[in-house]
Amino acid sequence: MNPEPLTVVKIGGAVIEDPSSLSRFLLSFARIAGNKILVHGGGRTATALASRLGLETRMSGGRRITDAPMLDVVTMVYGGLLNKRIVASLAALSLRPVGLTGADCGIILSHKRPVGEVDYGLVGDIDRVDSSTLRSLLRMGLTPVLAPLTHDGKGTLLNTNADTIAAHVAQALAPLYPTTLVYCFEKPGVLARPDDPSSVIPRLTPESYEELRRRGVIQGGMLPKIDNAFLSLRAGVLGVVITCFDTLSDPSSGTTLTLR
Amino acid sequence: MNPEPLTVVKIGGAVIEDPSSLSRFLLSFARIAGNKILVHGGGRTATALASRLGLETRMSGGRRITDAPMLDVVTMVYGGLLNKRIVASLAALSLRPVGLTGADCGIILSHKRPVGEVDYGLVGDIDRVDSSTLRSLLRMGLTPVLAPLTHDGKGTLLNTNADTIAAHVAQALAPLYPTTLVYCFEKPGVLARPDDPSSVIPRLTPESYEELRRRGVIQGGMLPKIDNAFLSLRAGVLGVVITCFDTLSDPSSGTTLTLR
Repeated sequence: MNPEPLTVVKIGGAVIEDPSSLSRFLLSFARIAGNKILVHGGGRTATALASRLGLETRMSGGRRITDAPMLDVVTMVYGGLLNKRIVASLAALSLRPVGLTGADCGIILSHKRPVGEVDYGLVGDIDRVDSSTLRSLLRMGLTPVLAPLTHDGKGTLLNTNADTIAAHVAQALAPLYPTTLVYCFEKPGVLARPDDPSSVIPRLTPESYEELRRRGVIQGGMLPKIDNAFLSLRAGVLGVVITCFDTLSDPSSGTTLTLR
Repeated sequence: MNPEPLTVVKIGGAVIEDPSSLSRFLLSFARIAGNKILVHGGGRTATALASRLGLETRMSGGRRITDAPMLDVVTMVYGGLLNKRIVASLAALSLRPVGLTGADCGIILSHKRPVGEVDYGLVGDIDRVDSSTLRSLLRMGLTPVLAPLTHDGKGTLLNTNADTIAAHVAQALAPLYPTTLVYCFEKPGVLARPDDPSSVIPRLTPESYEELRRRGVIQGGMLPKIDNAFLSLRAGVLGVVITCFDTLSDPSSGTTLTLR
């Protein structure tokens, strides 16, 4: 076990698409001690570019249906515009970032999601994260910045959800580093009352989560996020934190999920 | 001196923008023995995207004038679309490519070109190539794939000519590896008669070049390319080859430039 801890941070589109929020977030991110990996989204920018190019964005269950022209759009926006903007900004904060898709260094192999009730098109479900290559990059003092794209190993890029990438990366690296997974968004954490930012639930275990879920306190889009967080914990991740992008470096902020 | 040679290959936009040419080129590139680095352009695709977005492309002396919206376009096309397409294709050919801009790992630092007779906007002139980081990536068995973008270290990406990047990278690595620089394009080499593909000049030294230039045999856009090639040779690059993308792996093809 490497003694130096690893923090895998996922940052959502709404934050990175606002220049002032992004720069505050990146300052917080740069302050995290030890090894770190950033995973970003960017769906709103992709939708905006698609619209300027006359392409219609179709979603199903919150996921983008990705045909070939839409894959070009997300490759430009996720792999190019947003990834390189973040990389250039982190380089100015004295980090040595390296922007990667899953095809770069072959770090994330996936397969095209089989057509079921919905045909998501060029969307990839993850098969394998190359933790050894990520470790080599971290040992070089680099900070990987991962765009939400993977590849099938046969020459095709595939669109993959950023939350899922962050969870798989944290799980793959958990045997090599004491690993924490942080989901950053606009709210201060998991809230007991949706409209009250002061109602952050500081700690969740499977038991307390079950209770709050049963009582309807936690509901909606937060449920799959938390379910996935507990899966990561069971796979060896030490802690999962759901917190605000602005208070990332404050350990007392947000909601911390642990198994006990 | 590392005994394993290094080949730095520059491939132009006309080749990478045609899927069949690109796949033939990448097959040739993958066959090169030893360490290799690929530098690509992509101007035509950038111009096409700019036009779809209602942005006018303005050039001066063959160079793109790059305002902020145009920088977004080239970041999307060079850093995203084309770079990641090449990376995914090379990964399918059993290489381990890593697509990089100059901001990634801080490999190429530049400064914004001062405004002279022409204001090129967000265009970068190279200050420094981090040869030590490129060597670390090569030692990991990775193949760097460089997009024609650099950064100023203060958070701004800058548009930089791919020929120039290839020359600077080859010169920076020449003290560490026996380095060859290869410029690939559609023609079979430097031609004695522009319209006769069988008239390839197999070898050029400063003396024979001077003679052919004086007689008007070599002229036009080829002159700055060859002048830059001799600068690279004087900086320690062992050989510069100007050749066709299709015959890259054939050592008898193209025009080889050496100092003697």
